[in-house]
Amino acid sequence: MTDVTTPAVARYGNDAEAAIASVSASVSNWDRWGPDDARGTVNFIDADKRVAASSLVIRGETFSLSLPFDNDGPQNGWKRRVNPVHTMTSTGMDTAEIMGLPHGLSVADDCVFMPLQCSTQWDGLGHVFDHGIGWNNRVAARTVTSEGDLATGIEHVSEPMVSRGVLLDVGRVLAGGELPDGYAITPADLDATIEAQGASSAVGRGDILLVRTGQLTRVRRGVGWGTYAGGPAPGLSFTTAEWLHAREIAAVATDTWGVEVRPNEFPNSMQPLHQVLLPHVGLLLGEMWDLDRLAADCAADGTYEFLLAAQPLPFTGAVGSPVNPIAVK
Amino acid sequence: MTDVTTPAVARYGNDAEAAIASVSASVSNWDRWGPDDARGTVNFIDADKRVAASSLVIRGETFSLSLPFDNDGPQNGWKRRVNPVHTMTSTGMDTAEIMGLPHGLSVADDCVFMPLQCSTQWDGLGHVFDHGIGWNNRVAARTVTSEGDLATGIEHVSEPMVSRGVLLDVGRVLAGGELPDGYAITPADLDATIEAQGASSAVGRGDILLVRTGQLTRVRRGVGWGTYAGGPAPGLSFTTAEWLHAREIAAVATDTWGVEVRPNEFPNSMQPLHQVLLPHVGLLLGEMWDLDRLAADCAADGTYEFLLAAQPLPFTGAVGSPVNPIAVK
Amino acid sequence: MTDVTTPAVARYGNDAEAAIASVSASVSNWDRWGPDDARGTVNFIDADKRVAASSLVIRGETFSLSLPFDNDGPQNGWKRRVNPVHTMTSTGMDTAEIMGLPHGLSVADDCVFMPLQCSTQWDGLGHVFDHGIGWNNRVAARTVTSEGDLATGIEHVSEPMVSRGVLLDVGRVLAGGELPDGYAITPADLDATIEAQGASSAVGRGDILLVRTGQLTRVRRGVGWGTYAGGPAPGLSFTTAEWLHAREIAAVATDTWGVEVRPNEFPNSMQPLHQVLLPHVGLLLGEMWDLDRLAADCAADGTYEFLLAAQPLPFTGAVGSPVNPIAVK
Amino acid sequence: MTDVTTPAVARYGNDAEAAIASVSASVSNWDRWGPDDARGTVNFIDADKRVAASSLVIRGETFSLSLPFDNDGPQNGWKRRVNPVHTMTSTGMDTAEIMGLPHGLSVADDCVFMPLQCSTQWDGLGHVFDHGIGWNNRVAARTVTSEGDLATGIEHVSEPMVSRGVLLDVGRVLAGGELPDGYAITPADLDATIEAQGASSAVGRGDILLVRTGQLTRVRRGVGWGTYAGGPAPGLSFTTAEWLHAREIAAVATDTWGVEVRPNEFPNSMQPLHQVLLPHVGLLLGEMWDLDRLAADCAADGTYEFLLAAQPLPFTGAVGSPVNPIAVK
Repeated sequence: MTDVTTPAVARYGNDAEAAIASVSASVSNWDRWGPDDARGTVNFIDADKRVAASSLVIRGETFSLSLPFDNDGPQNGWKRRVNPVHTMTSTGMDTAEIMGLPHGLSVADDCVFMPLQCSTQWDGLGHVFDHGIGWNNRVAARTVTSEGDLATGIEHVSEPMVSRGVLLDVGRVLAGGELPDGYAITPADLDATIEAQGASSAVGRGDILLVRTGQLTRVRRGVGWGTYAGGPAPGLSFTTAEWLHAREIAAVATDTWGVEVRPNEFPNSMQPLHQVLLPHVGLLLGEMWDLDRLAADCAADGTYEFLLAAQPLPFTGAVGSPVNPIAVK
Repeated sequence: MTDVTTPAVARYGNDAEAAIASVSASVSNWDRWGPDDARGTVNFIDADKRVAASSLVIRGETFSLSLPFDNDGPQNGWKRRVNPVHTMTSTGMDTAEIMGLPHGLSVADDCVFMPLQCSTQWDGLGHVFDHGIGWNNRVAARTVTSEGDLATGIEHVSEPMVSRGVLLDVGRVLAGGELPDGYAITPADLDATIEAQGASSAVGRGDILLVRTGQLTRVRRGVGWGTYAGGPAPGLSFTTAEWLHAREIAAVATDTWGVEVRPNEFPNSMQPLHQVLLPHVGLLLGEMWDLDRLAADCAADGTYEFLLAAQPLPFTGAVGSPVNPIAVK
Repeated sequence: MTDVTTPAVARYGNDAEAAIASVSASVSNWDRWGPDDARGTVNFIDADKRVAASSLVIRGETFSLSLPFDNDGPQNGWKRRVNPVHTMTSTGMDTAEIMGLPHGLSVADDCVFMPLQCSTQWDGLGHVFDHGIGWNNRVAARTVTSEGDLATGIEHVSEPMVSRGVLLDVGRVLAGGELPDGYAITPADLDATIEAQGASSAVGRGDILLVRTGQLTRVRRGVGWGTYAGGPAPGLSFTTAEWLHAREIAAVATDTWGVEVRPNEFPNSMQPLHQVLLPHVGLLLGEMWDLDRLAADCAADGTYEFLLAAQPLPFTGAVGSPVNPIAVK
Repeated sequence: MTDVTTPAVARYGNDAEAAIASVSASVSNWDRWGPDDARGTVNFIDADKRVAASSLVIRGETFSLSLPFDNDGPQNGWKRRVNPVHTMTSTGMDTAEIMGLPHGLSVADDCVFMPLQCSTQWDGLGHVFDHGIGWNNRVAARTVTSEGDLATGIEHVSEPMVSRGVLLDVGRVLAGGELPDGYAITPADLDATIEAQGASSAVGRGDILLVRTGQLTRVRRGVGWGTYAGGPAPGLSFTTAEWLHAREIAAVATDTWGVEVRPNEFPNSMQPLHQVLLPHVGLLLGEMWDLDRLAADCAADGTYEFLLAAQPLPFTGAVGSPVNPIAVK
């Protein structure tokens, strides 16, 4: 931590644990959807929302918001997180004769080993706990075991994740492109971005909010991955928790490794905003989303809303999932 | 092979190799989209198509067409295809103290090992070859190497796969629910299903066609997976190649392991329809899709068309991808 | 369980839990090697033992006691245990040109995914617990976490596992080759085998004891794997616990999936002998060892003792390890 | 490459391809053990050799020459080579109740994903090719396919790899501990080391030769892995090929990533010594062996020979294998 006062410290003081407790109490959605709920804020996406979102498809263009899944990704082995290892079990070099197949048929097949948190992904509701308690007041130790997440596995949100997406291009509005590493995006910054971008950027119930910082642009400009996975980054300030909660969004995703500003804003803290948003708000977090092509298009046409299909793969009991989010404008 | 004459043998005779050669010549789309094309029939999905598809969202309900990805799947180890092995690298039992994290934070993480062909999936254009030649007349041995598919990897279709979906519930129309294993669905059967289902079932350019046989329903009724992966199954007859080609669909998917009827229709043959559709037509094939809940809904409301978001994960150079297809009605 | 009285029930009655408690108390080696011990009975192998074992090398012939590690192994997916999935990342088809390497060099590389319990292996001391307590009275929940075995990982026995091996070919002595599935090998059977085989079969301190049942021979004769992994099998009776403990052997291995007779001898029980031997005796268990070629040689020359190098791979924190045990006669 | 003349350039000139061709012709062992041979120089280990090697066990002490297999290893993702990813499928936190097991039994299980070339290993005979030709004049493209090595898989040497080991501690003799990166060990250096170490260091037929450079010591002293995997390193000069061949050793292993000096000695070359030793000499190469504790012991007692059990795991068709080599003195 630097000795510069961060937005979070300025507002809540130095004690991360106290700040988390205080904010969590004010933003809790526990029991909002009953004691058995496994979807959290994804419940805000309703049928009407999807009908409205579909009407945003004007030009019919798609934008994939996923990084490539391959060996050249951001991971460096921390926490056993490696980049995806894709291997072939048969290739185009394996002829019909080699494979013992009739009439000239040959087939290529492949496998992958990957941490589910390795690239463009959703953090599921079972990914983070606060003092041993997870979403909807569940006891972490009985919820996520070696068998996986027995209550809030990512499969529970594999069906509903189609909604209106809205992009707040904070990097472009505030910094002409890229926020510097360590920049904490405040509620005022989010409001200013909405104001600057105009009416299509209004954020509300059931939206999937995309926040572009520009860090990934920097990687792509030639800086390379460096410490993208876990190092300094622009990101959401801890002070956005109440803003995000109040808007009743379904999920929020960024173009960074960890959604939150890094280094984290409190002394000796680690992803404090996660600790509020996942277990207390029940808000899914999207990480390492590639927003650049979409952002350029939004800047060009002035429209920052779109249909967004961001369904995870239903890995039973997973605490996250790779995802290829598709925006349709 | 039984000695009963199959639709394919009745039409083309016993020689699979000759039939494949003949039909391939008549349905080839090589060079249709230029020599560098890596998308095949996905090119039929254009922006207007997506705009029209979006207008099919009337009620805003989503239907996931994916099987669960877990250890209880259909695979039996054939060709090193195992079911997904999902493992936790940290769980809810790992407290903040165990993890050495501050302010009561704890985190669960996970990994997966899986063949890309293990469950609900797209076969990419590099999955199948005819006499060493793949999509768009590429030489298989130089296209799909140990590094993966260097030309037609699944990443090339990761962005455009949002279109109109249309369900032909052949199992329900022809058999009141489930076609028997070994039943070869003919062009006449497809036409009869469209006729029976009504106008919303018309199949045309850029559509993603879903064909329900009912085999998965049988698995679910208690038969279990058994030989679902590779054994006898209802499926498309080889004789549908020209029908599928003529309609200029973007892709076709079924609720079976291998799209085609099994056992295959020619003596001593292996997936002959694949050998036409992937390398010659450039048509992506979806396998092991769970169409049952969607089919019940379509039967109930009489509407067999919908918006379909079926984007694969962009594994660089992969010859297929797991997918969680979402239909929105 | 059948209603036939098993050796264990005959001796201890029907209550597995009581029997385990009683026997465990009598065979416990806790604190024998101090409170920090991570090697259990492997401590019985001392330097003199190895010198003596080396003198058993008379002819200089080696015998690998490992099954092949490949897709055709015994696993069926139970508990996410699959057979090893071996994949190539480059092959001999990848020429120097393809690989971009100079002077005609090309390289083949490969990967494996495997459960550590998938084939010929050692069960480490952290593999089994009795009422939440592991070897040397350690609390299981604090010893083997998602990070692995923090105290008794297999790496702690990766160096010392060279000793005298001794084969008791119970299958040959008692049944002319193969014991039937469900046959419980008693202490009397072990003694009778030693008696029949002669002086070279004496079992004592620091020995690695190999017990051949013949079940694997049956698999190889054409029965196939069937339910080899977890189904009925000949094996050690629960009543051998004290015999094994008293002899101060370093480890025991069999040609079966689970060392113990299957079905287990008590009603509603699961591997009760494991529950005594691993946490209380601290005895490593070897499973799925291929003893047939060695056994034939021993029968031919009448010598049942040999140098045995059975070192596991030092996977840090693993609760077991694949092993290729080599006997040298 | 630096412009300093290397031993290889001094002797053979700048043309790596010509040098490889010339030396390969002079050291070829093709057909020495018949056209079907799959063991190469491992054939030099005969029964008498093992009997003699066993007599070297004087004190009965074992030395593991393996690095830990875990996440903290030398790999950096190059060529999809990651460090081993070890994950638990059940842990000590999973109680009998959680697991649904009787009488207080609970079980921990685990998995690993790893490249076979990730840590202490043998390069098998199918690992390297010269102009598309492998060991014993086999055509690489037909020998090592996507199914693995069909002729010279590592399983073919899984049984015989017990022999006399001999350590040449070149680092200690020439540099008092550690050779600098880029130092090319010449035949004269090997001879000088034997001379300095004394009679127990004689190298001959069937020996497994261990060459210590000291690079791993440097890593352990605090330098860290850095570019250990593929970067500059001390190692064998290309000029040792004939020396190694003439001595009829069974295999050679070092404490470095790649056996050979790095950067390689010729301009624009890549592991030229591999290209001679594996396909032409049929000599197995051991990489990333931890020789430090053994070397300290040898320096202390002046005895550089020992029994060595260095059996690979029999992964069917693998081009290499992790190994935990055990020296017994």
